[in-house]
Amino acid sequence: MATPQFKELRHAYGFDEVAIVPRDVTINPDQTNIDFKVGNFTFSVPIIAAAMDGVTDVNFAILMSRLGGLAVLNLEGIQTRYENPREILAEIAQAPDAEVTPLLQKVYSQPIKENLIGKRIQAIKQGGAVCAVSVAPANTKRFAPIAAEAKADIFVVQSTVTSARHISKSYRGLIFSELRQSIPMPIIVGNCVSYSACLELMRTGISGVLVGVGPGAACTTRQVLGVGVPQITATMDCAAARDAYLRESGRYVPIITDGGMDNSGDLCKAFAAGADAVMLGSILAQAKEASGLGYHWGMSQPDPALPRGTRIKVGTTGTLQQILFGPASVTGGSQNLVRALRVAMGVCGVFTIQEMHQVEMVIAPSIITEGKSWQLSAHTRAV
Amino acid sequence: MATPQFKELRHAYGFDEVAIVPRDVTINPDQTNIDFKVGNFTFSVPIIAAAMDGVTDVNFAILMSRLGGLAVLNLEGIQTRYENPREILAEIAQAPDAEVTPLLQKVYSQPIKENLIGKRIQAIKQGGAVCAVSVAPANTKRFAPIAAEAKADIFVVQSTVTSARHISKSYRGLIFSELRQSIPMPIIVGNCVSYSACLELMRTGISGVLVGVGPGAACTTRQVLGVGVPQITATMDCAAARDAYLRESGRYVPIITDGGMDNSGDLCKAFAAGADAVMLGSILAQAKEASGLGYHWGMSQPDPALPRGTRIKVGTTGTLQQILFGPASVTGGSQNLVRALRVAMGVCGVFTIQEMHQVEMVIAPSIITEGKSWQLSAHTRAV
Amino acid sequence: MATPQFKELRHAYGFDEVAIVPRDVTINPDQTNIDFKVGNFTFSVPIIAAAMDGVTDVNFAILMSRLGGLAVLNLEGIQTRYENPREILAEIAQAPDAEVTPLLQKVYSQPIKENLIGKRIQAIKQGGAVCAVSVAPANTKRFAPIAAEAKADIFVVQSTVTSARHISKSYRGLIFSELRQSIPMPIIVGNCVSYSACLELMRTGISGVLVGVGPGAACTTRQVLGVGVPQITATMDCAAARDAYLRESGRYVPIITDGGMDNSGDLCKAFAAGADAVMLGSILAQAKEASGLGYHWGMSQPDPALPRGTRIKVGTTGTLQQILFGPASVTGGSQNLVRALRVAMGVCGVFTIQEMHQVEMVIAPSIITEGKSWQLSAHTRAV
Amino acid sequence: MATPQFKELRHAYGFDEVAIVPRDVTINPDQTNIDFKVGNFTFSVPIIAAAMDGVTDVNFAILMSRLGGLAVLNLEGIQTRYENPREILAEIAQAPDAEVTPLLQKVYSQPIKENLIGKRIQAIKQGGAVCAVSVAPANTKRFAPIAAEAKADIFVVQSTVTSARHISKSYRGLIFSELRQSIPMPIIVGNCVSYSACLELMRTGISGVLVGVGPGAACTTRQVLGVGVPQITATMDCAAARDAYLRESGRYVPIITDGGMDNSGDLCKAFAAGADAVMLGSILAQAKEASGLGYHWGMSQPDPALPRGTRIKVGTTGTLQQILFGPASVTGGSQNLVRALRVAMGVCGVFTIQEMHQVEMVIAPSIITEGKSWQLSAHTRAV
Repeated sequence: MATPQFKELRHAYGFDEVAIVPRDVTINPDQTNIDFKVGNFTFSVPIIAAAMDGVTDVNFAILMSRLGGLAVLNLEGIQTRYENPREILAEIAQAPDAEVTPLLQKVYSQPIKENLIGKRIQAIKQGGAVCAVSVAPANTKRFAPIAAEAKADIFVVQSTVTSARHISKSYRGLIFSELRQSIPMPIIVGNCVSYSACLELMRTGISGVLVGVGPGAACTTRQVLGVGVPQITATMDCAAARDAYLRESGRYVPIITDGGMDNSGDLCKAFAAGADAVMLGSILAQAKEASGLGYHWGMSQPDPALPRGTRIKVGTTGTLQQILFGPASVTGGSQNLVRALRVAMGVCGVFTIQEMHQVEMVIAPSIITEGKSWQLSAHTRAV
Repeated sequence: MATPQFKELRHAYGFDEVAIVPRDVTINPDQTNIDFKVGNFTFSVPIIAAAMDGVTDVNFAILMSRLGGLAVLNLEGIQTRYENPREILAEIAQAPDAEVTPLLQKVYSQPIKENLIGKRIQAIKQGGAVCAVSVAPANTKRFAPIAAEAKADIFVVQSTVTSARHISKSYRGLIFSELRQSIPMPIIVGNCVSYSACLELMRTGISGVLVGVGPGAACTTRQVLGVGVPQITATMDCAAARDAYLRESGRYVPIITDGGMDNSGDLCKAFAAGADAVMLGSILAQAKEASGLGYHWGMSQPDPALPRGTRIKVGTTGTLQQILFGPASVTGGSQNLVRALRVAMGVCGVFTIQEMHQVEMVIAPSIITEGKSWQLSAHTRAV
Repeated sequence: MATPQFKELRHAYGFDEVAIVPRDVTINPDQTNIDFKVGNFTFSVPIIAAAMDGVTDVNFAILMSRLGGLAVLNLEGIQTRYENPREILAEIAQAPDAEVTPLLQKVYSQPIKENLIGKRIQAIKQGGAVCAVSVAPANTKRFAPIAAEAKADIFVVQSTVTSARHISKSYRGLIFSELRQSIPMPIIVGNCVSYSACLELMRTGISGVLVGVGPGAACTTRQVLGVGVPQITATMDCAAARDAYLRESGRYVPIITDGGMDNSGDLCKAFAAGADAVMLGSILAQAKEASGLGYHWGMSQPDPALPRGTRIKVGTTGTLQQILFGPASVTGGSQNLVRALRVAMGVCGVFTIQEMHQVEMVIAPSIITEGKSWQLSAHTRAV
Repeated sequence: MATPQFKELRHAYGFDEVAIVPRDVTINPDQTNIDFKVGNFTFSVPIIAAAMDGVTDVNFAILMSRLGGLAVLNLEGIQTRYENPREILAEIAQAPDAEVTPLLQKVYSQPIKENLIGKRIQAIKQGGAVCAVSVAPANTKRFAPIAAEAKADIFVVQSTVTSARHISKSYRGLIFSELRQSIPMPIIVGNCVSYSACLELMRTGISGVLVGVGPGAACTTRQVLGVGVPQITATMDCAAARDAYLRESGRYVPIITDGGMDNSGDLCKAFAAGADAVMLGSILAQAKEASGLGYHWGMSQPDPALPRGTRIKVGTTGTLQQILFGPASVTGGSQNLVRALRVAMGVCGVFTIQEMHQVEMVIAPSIITEGKSWQLSAHTRAV
């Protein structure tokens, strides 16, 4: 009888299961450099606001750019379906929980108005900001030329899972090498979670990869599809692909960890796992300037046949300035993200994000210690 | 002194502990084929309704067959003990929690009426449906001829644990090779959870194996007997047995993962672990057409000496059509099971269930991230 | 520089983390033999009632013996400090939670009356029962002769941790080989949790070993001392010691898993891990006939300097007959322990407890699946 | 193509995840020796009160020293910013939860009065106590001479993470070898968590190392910075560094596990993991004599830009005498720490703390068994 062949399962880890180990050299946090580069753009803050309708609108994109980061406008959401999106956003914010999924299904069934695509991009550009926009793969051929004509700066192609090779009888899959020829701007593609998928995407010549499928507990992709890889492992795998691609091509393509980060600690861990930048949704949705008026929802929740996700009341906890640069009035890690990253880099003795990729992490599930009622450490203020 | 010999323990995994990894190629979900074959029957939906009195009665079996799946009628339950089962089902639905175990013990102490066996089978057949019926091993010799005479199509022999070889002084154990000779229909046997037990069952010549012992947290078999293997590991082990048996015999015997699935995500994982079909209880008990009127209970709860299980109020959340094919009005994975499976296959780039058996899964306990309050991903709608 | 030498940590497992795997042969539960032997005594039920004041008094010991098991009377508890223990037990049962530790400290500060030791033993013997009594190591030399004179049958020496070799300047440690000479009855000693400690105890010539230090979550030994090994690992280690000792000496010394079992499933797992018998406290404290009147407390809770443990309201859920032999009116595994054990042995295809030691177990934490709201399996009643 | 290079993650463990295994020899707890030495000082109790404003003031330091232990006074806290600290402490105790972080930010923005440094040290010395004081690295050059002049006995340099080599453009990092020359007293430095960081610190010639970064669940360092290593692993790593340094230099530098201990069980585990002493905050804050009036807060909570930590109501549960030496009136391990340590050493059969470093521990997560409602063990009182 042949030896039985059992399927093998690899362990994967999320933010809550790991912690960064400080090193034997420390540096002054003020000396750290956290620049993030994509194409010819350099950002002083490696944080990207997600293409979600509860976060990014024209004003938010301008503000985010002014503060040193980047925001991505969703070209298939409320901003391009409605002349006056604020009314719709207010309606969503006011809907009772039980009615919100049908309401979103209705709101997003309204057609996208092509003229609004150009209008939104131009408004962001007129605000002096770098303008990034996102489209799903199926609509890319239709909307990419419009975005290019309106002079968008960065083009994001994003769906739950996007691969370098999509097979369909009914339509011809998107060919990224062709897209690169047709629009004169850096292309960021996602999402993916594995070494090979990330490597294949990079080989098409694109300029950045978004990492993350079903990372968070309340993202229902994992409940509905069973699909997902926790973000630390996904980021480590895609970072290995980036490094392998650099060795084979000489080209450094940044990876952006997208989703699942609850606080600045998670953000620091994403960089320690290998991220070049992070894409944030819910943390930024708490900004006074976010479009969602204190609410946030997933872009797959309005799916007419297979909705996934939930509208969440995130509340409004401070200005975007305060969330990014403090001072923090709360102690849970939802404010002063930039200082937290610099301090974490300081205790790890690293000057750049690329050095941060090398720091050690340990598996240390926070849930294990949650029985503990309270613990305070004696460490003095100066870090 | 001799080296001490310690017992070894292998790790086993359940649905909540794993996740499917999408692959570097994706396909259009509409192109997937999810057919399930047992004996000479082919089903376009690889979902089987459990032989539980809160799920399957004559009408439900007809509807399930019409929609492309299969339902199994329990020949030792309420349907064959009572001329008018609806009265009894209503009584169970209305009983207060504290009284339900004694009530069920009383209800199931009523003798099985042999004439009702034929009557129920004929009613299902007259409805144009494929008719599957289930019996416990001890009653198989008595009821199998009756089922055969009434022209049932598929015969299921099922108990908590069923083995190819049962030893008893007081009665001669069931010999499956003899049973195969005596009834002219495919036989599905279960439940089992291990490589060797599954392989032994297949070698008796039967046509399908049910996988799962004590899989769910509220199934009290594990509390009462300490016995059980989490479903992902059980399915992977039995899948390895199926593949080994195929190599040794040239015959492909499907395995059916039975129990423990809470949502469409769990269902997708069962297939990724190696299932050819899944048997569902509680998800289908939520259908408007289910026999339990919004309630559901285990078939070992009425045991007069050692009751296991609990009656659960599952509620009625939609039609069976909606649960199987959507559109979903909820986002938690309890509706549109078929679309969810096809989408999961799409992001894994696989065309058939057998290819789905090959996709990678990672160990990624969902409990670890449950402390997270909310997470939404920025992915756009198109999948 | 020398290689750093890190301490190594081995994984240990408790009842909730494992499950028994059914085998490819099943047997009729009625054919199982669950006899337990210690010295020249054979018990038809391998269950021992703990020497705890909320469980065992004279009447309980007689009843337990009559039903085929054994109960151990605590010679240093309420029964030997008070002429009329029922009054004291009622007082404990009625005390408010906040006052119970000081009350117990007071109750147990009363001196032990040597005449009551003889009186209690004689009462048990007059009831026709096998009489087992327990004493802490420090008091063994004083009380053992009294117990022997009163014709006790089995002598138990028990403390949190008891070793074959105790070092003290202030008194000469108990020498078990000497004790064996001085009293003409089998001696059971405990508790221990490791291979070497168990082996050393067996080599002193004693007749049984109690296994378990700080096994349960609410036993505060682990909180107070940090000491403890989960029961499955402790039992497996001590079973390996028993088997090694059998090989070296030809003598089979049974091990008794003591503490941490919540339900019949845990009890079945203890046997699968290698136990020859189990010692139960809280499950039996629920019997109508238990001395604690629905309450239960640890024997280290009254410690005047370092109390550990808590009084628990266990309630009264049935007669001892029903707890041991059913029929069960509840489905959670707290009744019909004997049938549950036989059924578990049946699905594992084993005839004796010693064969049960060989069955496979898997690591399958029940906590992982606790997020699941409900799961029922379709298995029919017959097992 | 080159082999992908994935980052590796090591498992790390905290107090709740391990347990001590008793050994095959036991000893009388009264014979244990728990002395702790640092520099030329010997303490009969290896417990150090943390430099936290809710724990240590002048009176507390005197009492702690009298009882055989040591307390560290924070030279950058309330005691040196306010002539009358009690008023401020009362104000903090009375503040509502929502206002406490801003209040602390305000309280700690008051300048440190250099004259109060000398005054506090002299008061402690006049009380006949060994006087230990702590300062953050950035302020060490400024305050160390003042502390030396006032005749402090032990100097502690402490921040969240302190390394042997700190790099900064704006100021010259603290050089410990220089500091040693300038002040004539033993220097304890921390915190660190890794083998190499601890070894590097010891090589600077200092006299003790504090171990622990973000150990507890409610310490928000891990949430804010993502940085931290659970204490058992951190202690084991630093113990390995201490042993390696002893081999290379012949000098024994003690390590002090700081933070994360909830009860005496955790304290025992810290010693089993390799600690020479422990530093406690919240357990001691419960003393009647603690400065916080039943409240406790972290020294990074008042950080003006990036506050971490929370004020906790710990309550007042007994005198310091009772917390250290009993008798305990509670059973959860928050009182009689010294007896608990001696008893744990007794069941492990070890006479000294250094032997305690050799005992076995197992990985045995307490969370796994938390579903268990209650468990009591039958062990008699004598340990």
